[in-house]
Amino acid sequence: MLSAPAPVSGTTRLYAVLGDPVVQVRSPLLVNPIFARLGLDAVLVPVHTRPEHLARVVDGLRCGGNVDGIFVTVPHKAAVVALADRHSTMVGIAGSANALRRDDDGSWYAENFDGLGFVAGLVAAGHEPAGRRVALVGAGGAGSAIAAALLSAGVDRLAVCDPDAGRLTGLRSRLDRHWPGRTTTSAGPDLDGADLVVNATPLGLDPGDPLPVRPELLPPGSVVADIIMHPRQTRLLRAAAALGHRVHHGIHMLDGQLDLYREFFRWQDRATTTRPRDVGYRSCS
Amino acid sequence: MLSAPAPVSGTTRLYAVLGDPVVQVRSPLLVNPIFARLGLDAVLVPVHTRPEHLARVVDGLRCGGNVDGIFVTVPHKAAVVALADRHSTMVGIAGSANALRRDDDGSWYAENFDGLGFVAGLVAAGHEPAGRRVALVGAGGAGSAIAAALLSAGVDRLAVCDPDAGRLTGLRSRLDRHWPGRTTTSAGPDLDGADLVVNATPLGLDPGDPLPVRPELLPPGSVVADIIMHPRQTRLLRAAAALGHRVHHGIHMLDGQLDLYREFFRWQDRATTTRPRDVGYRSCS
Repeated sequence: MLSAPAPVSGTTRLYAVLGDPVVQVRSPLLVNPIFARLGLDAVLVPVHTRPEHLARVVDGLRCGGNVDGIFVTVPHKAAVVALADRHSTMVGIAGSANALRRDDDGSWYAENFDGLGFVAGLVAAGHEPAGRRVALVGAGGAGSAIAAALLSAGVDRLAVCDPDAGRLTGLRSRLDRHWPGRTTTSAGPDLDGADLVVNATPLGLDPGDPLPVRPELLPPGSVVADIIMHPRQTRLLRAAAALGHRVHHGIHMLDGQLDLYREFFRWQDRATTTRPRDVGYRSCS
Repeated sequence: MLSAPAPVSGTTRLYAVLGDPVVQVRSPLLVNPIFARLGLDAVLVPVHTRPEHLARVVDGLRCGGNVDGIFVTVPHKAAVVALADRHSTMVGIAGSANALRRDDDGSWYAENFDGLGFVAGLVAAGHEPAGRRVALVGAGGAGSAIAAALLSAGVDRLAVCDPDAGRLTGLRSRLDRHWPGRTTTSAGPDLDGADLVVNATPLGLDPGDPLPVRPELLPPGSVVADIIMHPRQTRLLRAAAALGHRVHHGIHMLDGQLDLYREFFRWQDRATTTRPRDVGYRSCS
């Protein structure tokens, strides 16, 4: 059952999601019901932010004493890293972040939930990645985050492909620093022996896109995952399902993120919340 | 009947109210139901803004492409004037503003509704000020705005008192520029012949405060108004009512403002709204 959201009042805590465009973001419709269910007096609002204004919008929000968190989406995930005071290992590897939290000392900490959410969604769907071999197509922002999260979750071997040799080499060296010898790279997909094949490219957003991998090369029994949410059933997933593969939809990446956000931002049931308020402005002084 | 507010989504337009503190602001609880009733996809949220951060918070909000308006309350009403691109005559006279609107060319325009709201509340309560003689106690921010609004509404003679000679002289010269010869000033209250007596000082917020005027000097038949909202029934109003005067409560000043905001921000029923979106960022470039 849905709880009625608390009306926004002077005591309401504020979260913002920044994107350009921003009209398509789904997070307010997903997160605000969580606030309502937990009885939290908080609201997540969209802020349309052009790339050239990102630093100023983030600065203004950081100065807001009741602003507890900032989400960012395309095209701000890489640029926002420099606007946080600290960031996780995952952010360092991926070179991008999608959530910033104000910590109790007033500083801002950045995390990347794209990869963590993807892995949480996999696990929730019964596709435990630990010990498995994964072929990952795409070494961009999402692909990098997913690569790090998969290795962090115990994937045995990760084969990443991307036509951009520079970013492929860069990603591999960052991954090797934390998980040496577990990553191989190639310009085109290397699906050989993969238990799980992941599309982390935008191919499939448009119905006319070419397929990111040739379906007939998918190893028998492999699970095929896509990070594209719209359409839910991409051409790749349709082709894979037709060949008898289990498929994993892009939407699970977001489902997986909600629980992680709750933990990251320490959203607790109001009855158990003892978090101090307006604790500091260290980084806005 | 209250309409259910539209859920906040990626398309929601944003308004913010800035104050220090901000937890006491009532505007979200007053304005958001208006949005709901009009079917507008918009939300007003509080942003706790310390004085030293005002410029940065306003700058960040101005850069937000879906931010259409900013309300400010204590202690930002004077400082925010310089952060707008243009302002009304009323703001120039009062030296303070409490609402900023993004215009279609992307510039921001400031208005002061304290005085306009007070006059609208007076008129709604049947106390038409045109042609009347008014004694106004207090030439601070609220008093200045009320003085200008009263003269603008056609008050015949305005007697303003304030112990601060400097600000009294300054206000009188600004008022005389627009309404020459209609204002008199004195250090203490000059209630002689007043049809309406207005307290625009903070005296009355605390039950232990002295009265702003001596009730026995209130002219017979005069209406006595207070701008203090809490307590609703100030010591002044209680004393005036006991002497048989009609009294006008502070809350009417806010009631009067809501219709003015609606006009200022062009909040129209969704069915008739044709306003362009994200029209410009001229002043955030």
